[in-house]
Amino acid sequence: MTVQAQADEGPVSTTIATIADEVGVSVTTVSKVLNGRADVSPETRARVEASLERHSYRRRSRPRAEGASRIDLVFHELDSAWAMEIIQGVEAVTAVAGLDVVLSQLGGRHHPPQSWLDATLTRRPAGVLFVLCSPTVAQQHQLRRQGIGFVVVDTDSATTASVPTVGSNNWNGGLLATRHLLELGHRRIAIISGPEDVLCARTRLSGFRFAHEEGGIPVDPAFVRHGNFYLESGYEHGLSLLDRDDRPSAIFAGSDLQALGVLRAARRLGLDVPGELSIIGYDNLPVTAWTEPALTTVNQPLRAMAGTAARMVLELARGDELALHRVDLVTELVVRESTAPPR
Amino acid sequence: MTVQAQADEGPVSTTIATIADEVGVSVTTVSKVLNGRADVSPETRARVEASLERHSYRRRSRPRAEGASRIDLVFHELDSAWAMEIIQGVEAVTAVAGLDVVLSQLGGRHHPPQSWLDATLTRRPAGVLFVLCSPTVAQQHQLRRQGIGFVVVDTDSATTASVPTVGSNNWNGGLLATRHLLELGHRRIAIISGPEDVLCARTRLSGFRFAHEEGGIPVDPAFVRHGNFYLESGYEHGLSLLDRDDRPSAIFAGSDLQALGVLRAARRLGLDVPGELSIIGYDNLPVTAWTEPALTTVNQPLRAMAGTAARMVLELARGDELALHRVDLVTELVVRESTAPPR
Repeated sequence: MTVQAQADEGPVSTTIATIADEVGVSVTTVSKVLNGRADVSPETRARVEASLERHSYRRRSRPRAEGASRIDLVFHELDSAWAMEIIQGVEAVTAVAGLDVVLSQLGGRHHPPQSWLDATLTRRPAGVLFVLCSPTVAQQHQLRRQGIGFVVVDTDSATTASVPTVGSNNWNGGLLATRHLLELGHRRIAIISGPEDVLCARTRLSGFRFAHEEGGIPVDPAFVRHGNFYLESGYEHGLSLLDRDDRPSAIFAGSDLQALGVLRAARRLGLDVPGELSIIGYDNLPVTAWTEPALTTVNQPLRAMAGTAARMVLELARGDELALHRVDLVTELVVRESTAPPR
Repeated sequence: MTVQAQADEGPVSTTIATIADEVGVSVTTVSKVLNGRADVSPETRARVEASLERHSYRRRSRPRAEGASRIDLVFHELDSAWAMEIIQGVEAVTAVAGLDVVLSQLGGRHHPPQSWLDATLTRRPAGVLFVLCSPTVAQQHQLRRQGIGFVVVDTDSATTASVPTVGSNNWNGGLLATRHLLELGHRRIAIISGPEDVLCARTRLSGFRFAHEEGGIPVDPAFVRHGNFYLESGYEHGLSLLDRDDRPSAIFAGSDLQALGVLRAARRLGLDVPGELSIIGYDNLPVTAWTEPALTTVNQPLRAMAGTAARMVLELARGDELALHRVDLVTELVVRESTAPPR
């Protein structure tokens, strides 16, 4: 079988000429497909793509490309102090390496549009760092063929094993926060987690449940909420949890911003924090040290995660194999003033 | 006089060959100087620079440059939610224009190092947007010669008239905040402004004094403080102002972060806000709507300022004359919960 024979020779032996011969097109056409150019018919492009895939084609040498001195930092959404932590973590690494950071955002989408990918294939940056988003499988192939390395920062953990990813230990974060509340004596603990379809939210919830099981304390199903990670969500779920007679004595929020929303709901209802309600946030954004009261939270080391991912992108750009393909940095509890024993 | 004669022909008539002839070097050497290349002796470079300056040399046409699809966003410091507002304002404009945003920071310096400038001259971005920093006069000349437009976002107002600048009305901001406190009945108002050598800090202080004069209320010199714009500064000045018998009944902070520091100092001393102390911040960062109590503040329209500056950079990149060279956007008072009449 031709395909098998080619594969036996090893992927590096495949040249553009081989692909062009097999598909029956010119070398220029194959090159155009590789470079993400638009002037190839969809049908030809599909045939070339399929051939490239069969041969596991990878560009062998990287001639000096326009984008060689830049890495692209692509956000799912460019929002809040959370994104700033990531930017600072990346910038600390790229500044030393003399690389530019090019910023873009996908306006809430989880995969980049093909137009972004085509531009990136043409420009060929030293690498791409995706934050809470990732290339589709087809896009991964296209990037790899062009020798453009990519790493995902993903607390979401929705990425596949084939994608180098830096995350943090969400289960441990959920466990630590809940244990802290249980150790303080809380027995009625609510959780407002992230969206139910986001893996990190379910993972933290799993840690929350595990801590309860450890202590032999049942979880009240009415106390398990899913919101988004923003302030308003914390405020609304906070109001609905706290404005009832059998209200929880503690709330574990899905993010620091959400925790600020809970804090506001408590204040609206005249509840003292931490006297009548303990609150734990998640992320440990700088502002949490300065809120009133200062927020007990789970440190998600965003800068270190971003820095680690940036260093992995640089390793890939140098053509090195990654020592680690999936890294989860450790989460830690930071106890401040918003948690106390229940009255 | 040769120089005058050349000038009369108009600057656009000067070619690189003219410069090379005058200085007695090759066209290649002049080109190297223009492109910020290192392999020209300092002495020759100085003579070429001087000639270019005499002739007001400007590159006439912009061949497609490596950097044509990017604008550089250069921060004095990449820090806090403040920078995030700027990034979002720029990104909203460049995303529509299909331009990349390349991020860098000067680590607290107010002018870019020559290494950055040399790289930028080589790369030739569509334009540069400086935030709280600016090119030196020599660097301005170098950028202009290469046809690289630049605009400064500068609440600092330390930039010269020759640099297109977007700022905001600091004097008005100081006036509005102080008037609000006086109208509430405060007579003992302290101000913690920015550093004394920063013009925007002095300008706001001037608005603060003007409001007092308007009302015939004297300003206690002990109540005029200069700090930096960060949390710790607000906390320290806050403690020192509030831990005395004749403490102020209101504090006007130099930034929202500083105001959060004051809030914390008040709490440390057991003072109720706004019952025993009114606090006003500056900037109107998103978090101020959610602090406890929500912060009365002066809206400095950072996103709009950044967006305006980005649009000016695009105008320059198109070769248009700027309609406005210096734009100050309006500041507004945002009344929330941290201000009330004194007891």
